[in-house]
Amino acid sequence: MATVTIWNEFRHEREDDDVAAVYPDGIHETIATGLADHDVHTATLEDPEHGLTEAVLEATDVLLWWGHEAHDEVDDAVVERVRKRVLEGMGFIVLHSGHYSKPFQRLMGTTCSLQYREDGATERLWIVDPGHPIADGLDESIELPRTEMYGEPFDVPEPDRLVFVSWFEGGEVFRSGCCYRRGSGRIFYFRPGHETYPIYEHEAVRQVLRNAVDWATPTDGSPRTFGERD
Amino acid sequence: MATVTIWNEFRHEREDDDVAAVYPDGIHETIATGLADHDVHTATLEDPEHGLTEAVLEATDVLLWWGHEAHDEVDDAVVERVRKRVLEGMGFIVLHSGHYSKPFQRLMGTTCSLQYREDGATERLWIVDPGHPIADGLDESIELPRTEMYGEPFDVPEPDRLVFVSWFEGGEVFRSGCCYRRGSGRIFYFRPGHETYPIYEHEAVRQVLRNAVDWATPTDGSPRTFGERD
Amino acid sequence: MATVTIWNEFRHEREDDDVAAVYPDGIHETIATGLADHDVHTATLEDPEHGLTEAVLEATDVLLWWGHEAHDEVDDAVVERVRKRVLEGMGFIVLHSGHYSKPFQRLMGTTCSLQYREDGATERLWIVDPGHPIADGLDESIELPRTEMYGEPFDVPEPDRLVFVSWFEGGEVFRSGCCYRRGSGRIFYFRPGHETYPIYEHEAVRQVLRNAVDWATPTDGSPRTFGERD
Amino acid sequence: MATVTIWNEFRHEREDDDVAAVYPDGIHETIATGLADHDVHTATLEDPEHGLTEAVLEATDVLLWWGHEAHDEVDDAVVERVRKRVLEGMGFIVLHSGHYSKPFQRLMGTTCSLQYREDGATERLWIVDPGHPIADGLDESIELPRTEMYGEPFDVPEPDRLVFVSWFEGGEVFRSGCCYRRGSGRIFYFRPGHETYPIYEHEAVRQVLRNAVDWATPTDGSPRTFGERD
Repeated sequence: MATVTIWNEFRHEREDDDVAAVYPDGIHETIATGLADHDVHTATLEDPEHGLTEAVLEATDVLLWWGHEAHDEVDDAVVERVRKRVLEGMGFIVLHSGHYSKPFQRLMGTTCSLQYREDGATERLWIVDPGHPIADGLDESIELPRTEMYGEPFDVPEPDRLVFVSWFEGGEVFRSGCCYRRGSGRIFYFRPGHETYPIYEHEAVRQVLRNAVDWATPTDGSPRTFGERD
Repeated sequence: MATVTIWNEFRHEREDDDVAAVYPDGIHETIATGLADHDVHTATLEDPEHGLTEAVLEATDVLLWWGHEAHDEVDDAVVERVRKRVLEGMGFIVLHSGHYSKPFQRLMGTTCSLQYREDGATERLWIVDPGHPIADGLDESIELPRTEMYGEPFDVPEPDRLVFVSWFEGGEVFRSGCCYRRGSGRIFYFRPGHETYPIYEHEAVRQVLRNAVDWATPTDGSPRTFGERD
Repeated sequence: MATVTIWNEFRHEREDDDVAAVYPDGIHETIATGLADHDVHTATLEDPEHGLTEAVLEATDVLLWWGHEAHDEVDDAVVERVRKRVLEGMGFIVLHSGHYSKPFQRLMGTTCSLQYREDGATERLWIVDPGHPIADGLDESIELPRTEMYGEPFDVPEPDRLVFVSWFEGGEVFRSGCCYRRGSGRIFYFRPGHETYPIYEHEAVRQVLRNAVDWATPTDGSPRTFGERD
Repeated sequence: MATVTIWNEFRHEREDDDVAAVYPDGIHETIATGLADHDVHTATLEDPEHGLTEAVLEATDVLLWWGHEAHDEVDDAVVERVRKRVLEGMGFIVLHSGHYSKPFQRLMGTTCSLQYREDGATERLWIVDPGHPIADGLDESIELPRTEMYGEPFDVPEPDRLVFVSWFEGGEVFRSGCCYRRGSGRIFYFRPGHETYPIYEHEAVRQVLRNAVDWATPTDGSPRTFGERD
């Protein structure tokens, strides 16, 4: 059982009735119900220090991140704190529009830009790496009947492992499940998750998040020694 | 200017009128016309030693390979000769159904299996790595109006660089442009190329092959020293 | 608890008194004592089908391989059987001179050649990837006071993850711990292990093998579908 | 012929007689003499905008970077400008203590920390990737008789290609030549280069820098399209 912190901007749900209808308690609470085997905590933008104090991060094995319209409001000191903890070993699962979040951009070093179109058409996520633990128990693909389109080029470093590639009804593709390690931390970017579609209630999506939490949970490793050595 | 050898099984074109109508002189000759800036040679299955003698391979900078129905007829000694030359530095561009060719399978180590469906529907190849030299001068995607479908999972090692991902009208995706290095040799797998569609007359496809030849041409490297060292 | 099969050529130990003095019951038995938490089996070259029948491989989660002077005597059908099982998900840990074993060469596709010198000098394995599970519980380096030297260039595909780099007293370096995935199987090459030095009694080496078995044990994955798709 | 800009902090050479004795005109000028086939420019910390104006970077194909004691004095706006140009395609060669420079850290996302010891002992750089263009024309290793030691763990993302691994007389190893791509830009980290040893007058080191400039020079690529797509 891992200690999991789900961070959500929690802005759309309180400002937009359409979003509130899908996620009445916030996206974080819906995600949390799918990870009930873990010790799950939540944190949001409006919490003091965005709910990500040194103590919270120190105790967190895996951090999930959902943000969209308020990336710029995330304090740089908290961003740096998150980055430091990832490099020390904390798992980091970045969801959907979190591709533009500050901690993800800082860890990738690239713009993380992509193309998009909000059209409510079908997405099918193909598993291109069936042997990966994040694919455990899934079928050969996951179909989401209505969602937003994300298209290539996705300006990220070449993933260590590419697990999912999305097909979109409108004619695009996207690298939807990308694994990275930075320092001792495992990072997984997972595309699905728009705020006006009930993506996080989809059983296969929930299975992916469970698998990703297992995959990203840190192991002991060996000591990281820094600085001068005599 | 590189010395390029285009290897073609050259069986379909002589057995099947539909194929002969598209490629009357053989697929290799059509490919050759697109690489006219290079010193281009061709070789086929029926040639002595399949046209791939020690002398031919020694002089070849980049070898292109098209095969489909007669993979098993390629002599194992020639396969091993090709593999050895790739490891020494010869570029190797594997086309379409060549994913099941012996030299590609031997160099990859995996089954190289995939899904397929011959339906003559549209393929769009998206460039997921715009900075790669194989993408030089291309638009953001290449559209092939009628082709065969190849689907994931494609059982190859994770590519060093993934340049193209295909979208298929029927609902699938495929990693269509995969770069590898093995030993000193550069290997590029490129999906398009069915025998009954005039794929190799498509200008963007020809541009990809020109770029791939440039990319795969060997440089000097440093000496590879083997065995005991005192 | 994984089902582990340790394969040993078991030739040196019966032909050479110096080796027998170090490994009286065979290298496989010494390795086995370090993996006592698992369900451990052994198999050797002289066993029928080298002890690697379909049934044995089917039941094996992780296969360890030690061979040196009799690589050529390993039957090609067994080699292909091992390769197939690795691609299906069986873990495969290749030890020391096993770099030239047929199954490793077939899975890598390269020559797997290297330089060597038998001089009984010191090796220090540095952990270059402290966050990797194979490094769990280790110090920053492992020192082997007397061993054989392996030097670069090591002709293998660029590893997915490089965990150890060796320093040798005589002036060389070597990529001593290399992780790969091929198909659904995890492969780990680990350099230490000469037959006349008691390497497999070294506690840190045993810890590496325990970690590697844990890392290489297959998870469920998703179904691998092959062939035509309608 | 590429347009090359060599950036140097240029502080040690003016403050320390020992450094001035080795590099009387500054490290940048010594590096420049080795790249005479190119259109070479230099820029230093004290120049307006550190000599890296929009116009200079726009015209630069490959930027080399040497910094050590004044990393913090590099203006964040210039750092961001450099990063942006790298992502657009400019090559970036980071030398020695530049591992802690702001632009390299920003592009890597990690701490880029390492161990070190200034002891003036021997380093031997082994070529672990003889087929790489940065190894063109080199022998199997490069020996630097007196230099500073850098040791693992080096906290960088797993390199796309690892070209050099260093052996140090004092017992350490280091990944001394690391290739990355970020966005459309090629990045090469090269370890040698301490300010009190005449490293950049060493002929093989100069050959590496020439090769690296060739390798990092951008090609055309395909257009990078961003934002919404209809």
